[in-house]
Amino acid sequence: MDMKRIVIAQGGGPTAVINESLRGVIEAAKTAGISDIWGASQGVRGLLEGKFFDLSTLQEKMLGAIAATPSAALASTRDKPDETYCQALAQIVQKHKIDGFFYIGGNDTSATLMKLSSFGLGENFRAVHVPKTIDNDLVLNDHVPGYGSAARYVALAFKGMDLDQCALKGVHIGVVMGRHAGFLTAASAAMRQSEDEGPHIICLPEDDFDEEAFFAKVRDVYQKYGRCLIAVSEGIHDKEGVPFITRYTQGQKDAHGNVQLSGSGALGDMLAARIKDKLGIARVRADTLGYMQRSFPSVVSNRDAREAYEAGAHAINCALDKQKNGSVTLNLDDEGNTIYGYESLDAIGGKTRYLPQEHFKRGDFDVTPSFIQWIRPLLGDDMPMVAKLNLPFIKL
Amino acid sequence: MDMKRIVIAQGGGPTAVINESLRGVIEAAKTAGISDIWGASQGVRGLLEGKFFDLSTLQEKMLGAIAATPSAALASTRDKPDETYCQALAQIVQKHKIDGFFYIGGNDTSATLMKLSSFGLGENFRAVHVPKTIDNDLVLNDHVPGYGSAARYVALAFKGMDLDQCALKGVHIGVVMGRHAGFLTAASAAMRQSEDEGPHIICLPEDDFDEEAFFAKVRDVYQKYGRCLIAVSEGIHDKEGVPFITRYTQGQKDAHGNVQLSGSGALGDMLAARIKDKLGIARVRADTLGYMQRSFPSVVSNRDAREAYEAGAHAINCALDKQKNGSVTLNLDDEGNTIYGYESLDAIGGKTRYLPQEHFKRGDFDVTPSFIQWIRPLLGDDMPMVAKLNLPFIKL
Repeated sequence: MDMKRIVIAQGGGPTAVINESLRGVIEAAKTAGISDIWGASQGVRGLLEGKFFDLSTLQEKMLGAIAATPSAALASTRDKPDETYCQALAQIVQKHKIDGFFYIGGNDTSATLMKLSSFGLGENFRAVHVPKTIDNDLVLNDHVPGYGSAARYVALAFKGMDLDQCALKGVHIGVVMGRHAGFLTAASAAMRQSEDEGPHIICLPEDDFDEEAFFAKVRDVYQKYGRCLIAVSEGIHDKEGVPFITRYTQGQKDAHGNVQLSGSGALGDMLAARIKDKLGIARVRADTLGYMQRSFPSVVSNRDAREAYEAGAHAINCALDKQKNGSVTLNLDDEGNTIYGYESLDAIGGKTRYLPQEHFKRGDFDVTPSFIQWIRPLLGDDMPMVAKLNLPFIKL
Repeated sequence: MDMKRIVIAQGGGPTAVINESLRGVIEAAKTAGISDIWGASQGVRGLLEGKFFDLSTLQEKMLGAIAATPSAALASTRDKPDETYCQALAQIVQKHKIDGFFYIGGNDTSATLMKLSSFGLGENFRAVHVPKTIDNDLVLNDHVPGYGSAARYVALAFKGMDLDQCALKGVHIGVVMGRHAGFLTAASAAMRQSEDEGPHIICLPEDDFDEEAFFAKVRDVYQKYGRCLIAVSEGIHDKEGVPFITRYTQGQKDAHGNVQLSGSGALGDMLAARIKDKLGIARVRADTLGYMQRSFPSVVSNRDAREAYEAGAHAINCALDKQKNGSVTLNLDDEGNTIYGYESLDAIGGKTRYLPQEHFKRGDFDVTPSFIQWIRPLLGDDMPMVAKLNLPFIKL
């Protein structure tokens, strides 16, 4: 099978390395002799509306600069196409003789491709998913491009908050992205070097959030160390699955009618107020890590950047070699090297992966050493070293 | 005058480079042959309670590692000593035969030294202020150690938020530290390269916050670009000087009875809700940049780190050469190089410097080109390059 004209698009939330995948697809497509390399503006929306860029005209230097820039260069979308929308997309594909659609995104994106591929677009058409998500919640993957850099940001942010709290004591809450999967919240512990260092409490969405047990834990830590650093997933919920954010407030809804978790400090502020009231601690602060987690320039895992590129290139090669639709996967061999695979869209599309049970204990408010061991290489090289003063008081 | 025993301490909020100043004082003190180099734990609190470390025992390598670590290694305090407290400090100084007190901090710290120096501690005692603040609000200084690195963080955060918003449009508010001085909020514009790039609106505490004018500006920008990125100082206030945060909420109070501005997302969330209500825009998000601004490891201006070190060393040299109390100052010569000076504690202590009038226009919600020109060198070298896709749509 030859491909003459392909379209590349980016969907869902931006990441620090999503443009490396874009570069990977473009460069592999050029190498394979694909003549028409188009980019769709704003994901499927651009495909629907016929808004295409000619990406083959980009010079190598400019493409390299774009690849090193955070956030989706083609612009993104939150559109989740239904049947009618997909039918319209299929017509565009046929009208413009598009041989392949390479969609860089998370599980919503893979679900869209799964739907689109069911429309019988012909033997020559390939729907290919290039994985991307800071949440790391794609099934059949060990880790996904975008996660390593976001995890690096979160690990460094909590290291900084811990150092800050050593200087000025109190209770400090950091709220981390990840509605259903706790991989990113767990990353808060990646640079912890001793038992007294924070985060002392980690609240994952894989566990039910028991407020009384939480208060008891905060009290214990505060009594022991005179301070307490807490990492909280934005998606914490009670044992009925009701998001904690809705417990004392009504919450705002997003475009899909879900409770809005990101882009608001409400959860952190609510928890801070509850701790003040319940435990009578005066200095309680909350920071919501916000969009910096996915878009901060210069905080990038070099391994993540490389893998994002390779995942993009692998997508082209699989589409050509395997002659079928699919989703690129990343898994580890016995030495911890990343192995790229290619799974069916049905196996990946719209499913959610959660933090494996071995990486945390229910009710424990913490991750296990196996998690730390797993995540460290994903953060990339050149993590900054930090040192604390460790001297006794002078005996006067 | 000889100094045999000195005490070094750190006060107020941490910064990314405050430990470079610590290293500067220690190394210059060693060079000058000062035998007893003590550090006080938790600023004046440690001086009061006799909690001292012997800093002369620190090996060069460990001292270098501590210097490169964010946040105050000696631990800090928010104590603002009154007369009685200062009297007790004076007694400790005499009891332990302390010849010099080198206090690294902002304007509260300089005010403490000013008070302490009025207690007639003898001809040989030196009270020396080593400047540090992310707010850059010390009078008689062009810029102050700690500001450059915090400004670098803020500039990069807003560059990332701008790129993120190009991918997924909407209104996004970023709340920046700085209760009275707008230097750090203004830094949000430092990496802006063209008129359409954000932040499109900058709300400084040096200007009165007129909510109606603000709404009109948000509406204009949103109509023009389909998006709007807003940088807001935590200290915005109405023309009577009342903090905006108290307008629709009661606000929390900090230890000094001031309205708590940091460590809460309340201001951003309130503004986001008001914009939704008033302008009917669906996607409005708010991020409060939080403690990451002052403590994030690896986001450091190399110029700022160097100057923090040099300011510490200069403090020792001035105390020995000039034989008087004082505060180290940083100003620029005609070529933009930093010149270190030494002013009296009375001239600096407890005063606040504001963003100069030439750097913004009242009612304009923006900074001027002169501000951008001034701040760029302070951010340090190796700012990451970013590039946007700039292609026309294919004509089909």
